[in-house]
Amino acid sequence: MAHTKGPSMNMHRDDLAGCSLVGIEVGAGPTETGRRAFSAVDPATGEELNPVYLVATDAELERAVHLAAEAFSAYAALPGPERTRFLHAIANELESDRDQIVERGRRETALAEGRLNGELSRATNQIRMFAELVEDEAWREARAQLPGDGSDWSSDLRSMRRAIGPVAVFGAGNFPLAFSVAGGDTASALAAGCPVIAKAHPGHPGLSELAGRAIARAARSTSMPRGVFSLLFDDAHEVGIELVKRREVRAVAFTGSRVGGQALLQVAAERDDPIPVFAEMGSINPLIVLPEAAQARGEEIAEGLHGSFTLGVGQFCTKPGVVLVPRGAAGDALVRALADRTEGTTDTTMLNTRTSHGYERGLALMRGADAELLASGTIATSSPACGAAALWETGLEQVASTPALLQEVFGPSTVVVRYDDPSTLAPFVRALEGQLTGTIHAEPDELLAHRALVDSLADRAGRVILNQFPTGVEVGPATVHGGPYPATSDGRSTSVGTRAIERFTRWVAYQNFPSEMLPDALRELD
Amino acid sequence: MAHTKGPSMNMHRDDLAGCSLVGIEVGAGPTETGRRAFSAVDPATGEELNPVYLVATDAELERAVHLAAEAFSAYAALPGPERTRFLHAIANELESDRDQIVERGRRETALAEGRLNGELSRATNQIRMFAELVEDEAWREARAQLPGDGSDWSSDLRSMRRAIGPVAVFGAGNFPLAFSVAGGDTASALAAGCPVIAKAHPGHPGLSELAGRAIARAARSTSMPRGVFSLLFDDAHEVGIELVKRREVRAVAFTGSRVGGQALLQVAAERDDPIPVFAEMGSINPLIVLPEAAQARGEEIAEGLHGSFTLGVGQFCTKPGVVLVPRGAAGDALVRALADRTEGTTDTTMLNTRTSHGYERGLALMRGADAELLASGTIATSSPACGAAALWETGLEQVASTPALLQEVFGPSTVVVRYDDPSTLAPFVRALEGQLTGTIHAEPDELLAHRALVDSLADRAGRVILNQFPTGVEVGPATVHGGPYPATSDGRSTSVGTRAIERFTRWVAYQNFPSEMLPDALRELD
Repeated sequence: MAHTKGPSMNMHRDDLAGCSLVGIEVGAGPTETGRRAFSAVDPATGEELNPVYLVATDAELERAVHLAAEAFSAYAALPGPERTRFLHAIANELESDRDQIVERGRRETALAEGRLNGELSRATNQIRMFAELVEDEAWREARAQLPGDGSDWSSDLRSMRRAIGPVAVFGAGNFPLAFSVAGGDTASALAAGCPVIAKAHPGHPGLSELAGRAIARAARSTSMPRGVFSLLFDDAHEVGIELVKRREVRAVAFTGSRVGGQALLQVAAERDDPIPVFAEMGSINPLIVLPEAAQARGEEIAEGLHGSFTLGVGQFCTKPGVVLVPRGAAGDALVRALADRTEGTTDTTMLNTRTSHGYERGLALMRGADAELLASGTIATSSPACGAAALWETGLEQVASTPALLQEVFGPSTVVVRYDDPSTLAPFVRALEGQLTGTIHAEPDELLAHRALVDSLADRAGRVILNQFPTGVEVGPATVHGGPYPATSDGRSTSVGTRAIERFTRWVAYQNFPSEMLPDALRELD
Repeated sequence: MAHTKGPSMNMHRDDLAGCSLVGIEVGAGPTETGRRAFSAVDPATGEELNPVYLVATDAELERAVHLAAEAFSAYAALPGPERTRFLHAIANELESDRDQIVERGRRETALAEGRLNGELSRATNQIRMFAELVEDEAWREARAQLPGDGSDWSSDLRSMRRAIGPVAVFGAGNFPLAFSVAGGDTASALAAGCPVIAKAHPGHPGLSELAGRAIARAARSTSMPRGVFSLLFDDAHEVGIELVKRREVRAVAFTGSRVGGQALLQVAAERDDPIPVFAEMGSINPLIVLPEAAQARGEEIAEGLHGSFTLGVGQFCTKPGVVLVPRGAAGDALVRALADRTEGTTDTTMLNTRTSHGYERGLALMRGADAELLASGTIATSSPACGAAALWETGLEQVASTPALLQEVFGPSTVVVRYDDPSTLAPFVRALEGQLTGTIHAEPDELLAHRALVDSLADRAGRVILNQFPTGVEVGPATVHGGPYPATSDGRSTSVGTRAIERFTRWVAYQNFPSEMLPDALRELD
């Protein structure tokens, strides 16, 4: 469709422009007409929301990438405190738009106001965390081999983490703030010294624009190079794929589906110079209840587990999707309590119809795999993007022959797998695909007898949890949100917590340079 | 060919068995006959060396992989000091076979005795370096988020580096000790807690067997699990490819050609669960001489450069393969001095005929690309694996239109690229592929005026060097031997120095575990 409205960064903040942000300056908007366009849809009503969003043109993508490459050297070389100021300014700008962000988020995602407020706080907290991290140079982990003083080194050699170059960030649909345009990927890349070209998730373009404009305002007010940030819109895959192909782009961060992540991995691998792709593609997050735990606190486990698998309509990558429960009376009681709670679940509007249709396909898969449907949530809405909670049951014997039972179903569904013998659990875990998390519920003595099971979970997951639940990641220096493939494409990394910055750096050594030519972090080693 | 001789680990150390080492125990040798076999060849004479080496069978590979997976949990969970003892024992065992190793090495590789002695010392030094690194738990970089004391954390969360699993190590041809069976990849993987399955380089099977037997003796004397190490022989690609396909193998380390590295990358990427491949694939290591440096010390630079590009018959991945020299009188004098020295080069026996034939093809490529041959070394041997030094010249204008001029030629060849304007050098560097090293020769004031050039080298290389030469890597805590693709497949890593251990680890977090269930490194955080 033709679209002639020009952009204006001077407009009242309530007005969304509906076009890509190419660099941070005012007036870098669209100059072409006749492009494809799309609208956000309120999943609760099916209503199309204003404005119409124009898909980024080739020229816009070209310019965003060019500006990012141009900005890289200067931006990466800034003293830490200047990047700190920029990041704090982003957090402040986001806070100043809090009401508008939450309201638009509610319309675009059907997530509750409380959740969106909490998620925005999480996003600004993690931006501030990275701001503080890079205020001094410790995060670069600088080291030196210095000759003299009886050392064996013949050359002065110093090395540190150095920014990798412009990063393409793909916003996630399920965390429209903390894992999207101004989420952890963008924050950690900007903190490292990498310009960011964000590809907005088509499910929440308005939220994305609000976040992108906050970043652009912060960049202008702190005098960052104009290519430090761009935001591109597309409701299909062309813009994202083209972005990953561009030589100027040096790393990719993605949170989303396995199909999406794998597509980007392939594009990156087929480049003349393959680049790292950090794709977080979700997992089934096995949760194991050992017999004594089931006996001692089955009801309590059922309550926590129900809360965890239905939280946010099950739209979490750490949702427990497979629960190992012992056969016998204690296990039966736990499962019954879980079924009762599942039937009482009424929160059912999913992020959008694409998500709810995907959820329907996932449920059909479970049916096709002969899992028994134990309980379903209540549908108390006429929302077109509806997804009711579902609790399934099968046996450990069936799982081995029916891998479909272990596929991720994105939404409020979990499958209880009944087992007889706890000694079969470690081999079961070892045969699983890579996971973001693995959880075990055990009584103290029982746990000591199951060290091998804990070890097996640590082999297959990025985070091992005892007697708690996997949803609700706390963001800090020790956080690990990663795991072997396919939980993430690079199982050695984390996409959450301060260590997420490592993804966008390379080790670089300087040999025999005089002090005045060294980066700050290396000069300090004298 | 049929081969019936059984293996014996009790044989006199001078006797080589000629078969794979499957696990570390005596008598795990070949049980089948009728397999393919090959021999080492003395490159100086063309003579086939005893014994005949049997290619590993499917059953041997299967068992090596199975034993490694079986050993992993126990080996990874050993207290640090036990892995330290094992690594020190490996270094001691290698030292105790020094004479035999050097003699066999001389026969198999034509490398000089002094070089082989030096390389063995480097290998044992780096094994000891990793032994000391893992004696305490600091290398795991453990961190904690602990509730209480007014903190905001609600869960006890601790994380650290954890061994990734069994690692396949591919020995390099050009560093038969420091980058081969008992080289840095094996040492860092074993230090991290990963069992190693080494694939011997077919160019030096005897050296490989000697190193493998030293590791096996050390493992037995320090009571390591039997699957901690295996060594497989193959003069073709089947065994290596099959190894990378095996689910039990969790990471791959490779040093060698780009073609070889890319083949392994592809196999790893096509797995159901792609695994990290750390392939060091060499580079052309640009060396830039700025005008004032050429003027002030052209002769000295020519001497150092000649030493660097002909060292070890040019068979180094850090060999400077392209040298930027200013046009004009000072540059002419430098190039003339370099040509004179090149003509006096007599060290010409390469590792094997495969290498020398590859070198011939590289020289043909330079001829085809219209580089001018300025000087050739002297062939003073009848060795069948002969490769004479070669010095080429071209202009910066030609390079842009003839990418072949910038291909790696493995051997004692380098191309001088003449330039007029130093301001064209930074764009030239930015257009290069990823490099292990980038070197600049500059006078002090001249250097200050070329910060952008230094930055461009840091963007494209893992190590930036001033007024020295790239060959001669010092191995320590600050070492970086890596660089963007294709220098390495994972430009964020280093394959040399203590940081090489990071490649074989993942971040793993433990949430809410009691102290007695935590790994040592995390327990210490209380």
